[in-house]
Amino acid sequence: MKNSKPTILVVNDDGITAPGIKALMDAMAEIGRVVVVAPDSPQSGMGHAITIGKPLRLDHVSIYDGIEMYRCSGTPVDCVKLAVNKILKGQKPDLCVSGINHGLNNSINILYSGTMSAAVEGAIESIPSIGFSLDDYTMEADFSHCIKFAKEIAMAVLKNGLPTATLLNVNFPATKAIKGIKICRQANAKWAEEFDERLDPHKRPYYWLTGVFQLNDGGEDTDVWALDHDYVSVVPVQFDMTAHYAIPTLNEWKFGE
Amino acid sequence: MKNSKPTILVVNDDGITAPGIKALMDAMAEIGRVVVVAPDSPQSGMGHAITIGKPLRLDHVSIYDGIEMYRCSGTPVDCVKLAVNKILKGQKPDLCVSGINHGLNNSINILYSGTMSAAVEGAIESIPSIGFSLDDYTMEADFSHCIKFAKEIAMAVLKNGLPTATLLNVNFPATKAIKGIKICRQANAKWAEEFDERLDPHKRPYYWLTGVFQLNDGGEDTDVWALDHDYVSVVPVQFDMTAHYAIPTLNEWKFGE
Repeated sequence: MKNSKPTILVVNDDGITAPGIKALMDAMAEIGRVVVVAPDSPQSGMGHAITIGKPLRLDHVSIYDGIEMYRCSGTPVDCVKLAVNKILKGQKPDLCVSGINHGLNNSINILYSGTMSAAVEGAIESIPSIGFSLDDYTMEADFSHCIKFAKEIAMAVLKNGLPTATLLNVNFPATKAIKGIKICRQANAKWAEEFDERLDPHKRPYYWLTGVFQLNDGGEDTDVWALDHDYVSVVPVQFDMTAHYAIPTLNEWKFGE
Repeated sequence: MKNSKPTILVVNDDGITAPGIKALMDAMAEIGRVVVVAPDSPQSGMGHAITIGKPLRLDHVSIYDGIEMYRCSGTPVDCVKLAVNKILKGQKPDLCVSGINHGLNNSINILYSGTMSAAVEGAIESIPSIGFSLDDYTMEADFSHCIKFAKEIAMAVLKNGLPTATLLNVNFPATKAIKGIKICRQANAKWAEEFDERLDPHKRPYYWLTGVFQLNDGGEDTDVWALDHDYVSVVPVQFDMTAHYAIPTLNEWKFGE
């Protein structure tokens, strides 16, 4: 950690007025200089989307006293890109934190999550990055028990750094009786989608995406297990998606011979 | 491969009228029964976004003779979910192919790509899945030299299957003088964003996202290297994003002690 106050970029996907980002910016303001760049509207489920077909708006806003804040018309990943390039003008922040998300981003949810994709983008920019999420998707969610852990983890990352091209996915159980922090792997699971089919007033069908979380993993070293047992889960995440283990198998296929 | 004709789901992110999906559906129709489900408008850069804040439309369309086609108002990942759940009604296709994308999805582009995210979603659904992309982003792109390789790779996957939770990311160089197929890893690279700042007629600024591809990888086993040397690149891809290598390091941090 540098001797001067670290600069901490705070982003999210629930939008700039969400209680979760307020809890996170307050916690980070105790550690460093906070700059908030967040979407002007909810962007849950946006994954690693970027805005390329239309222009972006970026406006300075004054919502909470003493905190530098900007709202962006784009996705969570757009927020990180605009923060680095336009607001911090290439001066990399010392830390990028995303969240605290209203709802879990454990297991396979990392792929769909705008919160986690913003943290992934931070890591691609070589910024030590952490995504935080709470097992409560309501706007009334109580984040008070998360603060102590969020600060502890952020300070550990500022002190130790993270391995190259690695970020953290941190999830909090809803219970206030947290047993501790567990380092985990991403549990193997999927969403079994169920579409709610309805008819509009013109008798044309439309569909709402819903689903059921299906755990296909009995391991006790996963984020799902840790959260089920009242631990904070911390999964180190990489953005090299290569299935290195499969390269020898594919070479045996001998294409073109 | 089953003795009966395999069912092949064809999706993309450039939209149902893109020349790239026409080239792919024609190639796959020579191998099996084709079902096309594609976005009604371009969805490039949508990553693994899903539509949860608004309902989805799904309409049967007749564009090309003899091919079963549906257009969807959602993202590429929505298309896969609707195809599996509403069109194929839980009967998993034997293969899911996505593309052929107008523009490369090699290296870090896999994270931003709707084409690749559709293939990832297919793999999450336990369907053998392949994403295809060509190094030509124009609507006039010529896909004719890709057909032979797309069919060869699709037939190899139908014959051999893929390792559990693994899909393929296939990229074609623009040249017609292709030297062969190379199994690769995802090159380490990033986009250095550059925002084009303009003023609207009301003198308010807006921003167009642009960027420059920065390769930080001298390896000769990467997809970038293969494409630069006129090979088709095939990267096996996984959706477990855990940085397993970092777990021992994080355990040494001894949180809460």
